[in-house]
Amino acid sequence: MFETLKGTIIHAPEPGKTEILEDGYLLLRDGAIEGIFPALPEGCEPERAYDFTGKLVIPSFADLHLHAPQYAMLGMGMDLPLIEWLNAYTFKTEALFSDPVFAREVYGALADNLIRLGTTRVCIYASIHRESAHILMEELERVGVTGFAGKVNMDRNTAPELTETPEGSLAETRRFIEECRARRYKHLSPILTPRFTPSCSDALLEGLAKIADEYDVPIQSHLSENDIEIELVKKLCPDCEGYWDSYARRGLWRDGTIMAHCVHSDEAERAAIKDAGVWVAHCPDSNTNIYSGVAPVRVMLDEGIRVALGSDIAGGAKLSMFHVMGEAIRASKTRYYYSGKREEERFLAVSEAFYLATSAGAAYFGAGPGFAKGDMLHAAVLSDETLPPSRKLTSLERLERLIYADDARCVRAVWSEGVKRF
Amino acid sequence: MFETLKGTIIHAPEPGKTEILEDGYLLLRDGAIEGIFPALPEGCEPERAYDFTGKLVIPSFADLHLHAPQYAMLGMGMDLPLIEWLNAYTFKTEALFSDPVFAREVYGALADNLIRLGTTRVCIYASIHRESAHILMEELERVGVTGFAGKVNMDRNTAPELTETPEGSLAETRRFIEECRARRYKHLSPILTPRFTPSCSDALLEGLAKIADEYDVPIQSHLSENDIEIELVKKLCPDCEGYWDSYARRGLWRDGTIMAHCVHSDEAERAAIKDAGVWVAHCPDSNTNIYSGVAPVRVMLDEGIRVALGSDIAGGAKLSMFHVMGEAIRASKTRYYYSGKREEERFLAVSEAFYLATSAGAAYFGAGPGFAKGDMLHAAVLSDETLPPSRKLTSLERLERLIYADDARCVRAVWSEGVKRF
Repeated sequence: MFETLKGTIIHAPEPGKTEILEDGYLLLRDGAIEGIFPALPEGCEPERAYDFTGKLVIPSFADLHLHAPQYAMLGMGMDLPLIEWLNAYTFKTEALFSDPVFAREVYGALADNLIRLGTTRVCIYASIHRESAHILMEELERVGVTGFAGKVNMDRNTAPELTETPEGSLAETRRFIEECRARRYKHLSPILTPRFTPSCSDALLEGLAKIADEYDVPIQSHLSENDIEIELVKKLCPDCEGYWDSYARRGLWRDGTIMAHCVHSDEAERAAIKDAGVWVAHCPDSNTNIYSGVAPVRVMLDEGIRVALGSDIAGGAKLSMFHVMGEAIRASKTRYYYSGKREEERFLAVSEAFYLATSAGAAYFGAGPGFAKGDMLHAAVLSDETLPPSRKLTSLERLERLIYADDARCVRAVWSEGVKRF
Repeated sequence: MFETLKGTIIHAPEPGKTEILEDGYLLLRDGAIEGIFPALPEGCEPERAYDFTGKLVIPSFADLHLHAPQYAMLGMGMDLPLIEWLNAYTFKTEALFSDPVFAREVYGALADNLIRLGTTRVCIYASIHRESAHILMEELERVGVTGFAGKVNMDRNTAPELTETPEGSLAETRRFIEECRARRYKHLSPILTPRFTPSCSDALLEGLAKIADEYDVPIQSHLSENDIEIELVKKLCPDCEGYWDSYARRGLWRDGTIMAHCVHSDEAERAAIKDAGVWVAHCPDSNTNIYSGVAPVRVMLDEGIRVALGSDIAGGAKLSMFHVMGEAIRASKTRYYYSGKREEERFLAVSEAFYLATSAGAAYFGAGPGFAKGDMLHAAVLSDETLPPSRKLTSLERLERLIYADDARCVRAVWSEGVKRF
């Protein structure tokens, strides 16, 4: 079946390179992108034609790091220092997800809002609870959000009700993966999710590495987020070459592993990231809210490290990737201001933030850059009708002010995996 | 006439001190606050009773610094360095306000959105154009936004089409003030608005000081925003004791003068601010977007300087004071992270940002702290129904997540100067 979307088509195949076709056509065949055309190819008679004239059609967003249960505590407790925040909010909230009814309510709302905000690809953490992790997958499937979701593993340094035994945690993880395969989720796959070194024993990490081999599943965790955590890892792993090595020597440092934050990753750690093919999920809003510092994103891009964006709710206070793009730029400008390295570390431009939130993240899921031929369509249609009156704007200016406006009402339609979902 | 608003009433009479009455009553007599009561006083039979049970009733916001014409360029050109941004966007946009039809369209939309976002008090810049400045006042009056608006003065270092002569600028300003008085705007008064020292000659500043005396009108301008501007002022006024003195020695440094930014105000300048009774409009979003640095708000509060918040659109990219509060906290955390002064300069807490956006700003307009008895009601009613599901929250947690959510849909009703306007 042929389908067309008519509108101003904007995508960013490379950082800083934004391609625009005014009043063009996106042509789909059975949900897959045939191409972008200034006029419909001769003889093409689409079964469905969507007219979004006057609106912008952009690739939908990928969120490479977020904690689903923390959606229930979004924007709360932000005055507290990290450890108090974890104890007063995070662990108490995550413990509630032993209740499948509560999980259904929160994950259902999260899924609905992800799709309405134009986020169609995620790498997402559930809690330690296997049953709730399935509920998360079901709810994401229901609305058409695609990607990877993980049952969290923790066997030390957390709240008692969230502390697993290494054996129990590994058994539940195996069972989770096998159930995922049996249930045949269409657009979601399991991902191994050891929370981070401080909350995972060597035995647990080594066991997860075996599971990764056995089932061929990827891994996500946290790395070098803030000073206190980094000091703790040094104590827990005194013989490690660096924080990264606490994962590497347990077998989890591999191609396709996602590490959130990397705010304080030094040259050696960044080299290890690049050499292994590890991905960085940059979470600017969270890093600012928890005053962790600002990750050296410009340096990572220059070094060829694969970096994309994460909302990291609820360290991040908003689910919207518009907000995350805005905060990525603001954080980058802050680093630019304070670092004194104005020549070497130019702040992120709007077009670069747009690239990071779309093509860079989508690549993790195997997508080509921008609206790549052959890919199933992931797209969001944006209207700027409700934004302030202005002189006639270029399409790039329209995109820029939509990003800064961060107004959920601007998203008018969303395609995920070739299907219109909103 | 008696009126009541029933709901959870939250206000902040002091920085960091938030008072809450669950399911209480705000009682009004002819629009003025009679008091806050846990139950209606005996025998009180209000003619109008609004039931906002389950919602939060807070003081509406004061925005102490924003540029009305720049609403037409909100969230645009943010990649450009300051001078290029001014030339490519700001001056070109402001020049369009010689056209009253365009001014009506933009100012009408601005006014509508201010009231819908719960901002009922402003100190606002128009452009240099007298006629458009009246249109701004008319549109603000139409929706019930109150405060001060100024025709901008500039006679040097700006675009040719925006350059006045000192005599012409002063004559237009006098005429503007006299017309304001003749037209008897109900809730808006004129304010003298020399853009800043770099764009105003000594003759112009001195002439404005005379007008301030003659008509008893307040003054607003910019101070110590960023390095380039500060260097320029040093060159323009080599004999000045500091940037502040460029206003002081022309007679504009007085009780009630508002200075936007003050990012780089040193101890001497802050002492001059305090001694004179000058007010500081802190504009965190703008300061981050233009990478000006972060103003020492904690220090100012500790020193007893009168400081409140400004959106500073379009250096600030959003009109919403929810966003401005969030960015005030984020900027403050950034300063906390980078300054190394963790003991002396604690970052702004949510309750402090709430105080700055409400009571602190309202005081400029003569209002008492919080919902003060005798004041005409300025209030916003907030619903968190559309926010994520959660465990049962405290009212303070509900307020916090509404601030971080920054979702225009949450504002459900607004009172300004005792009248329900939205």
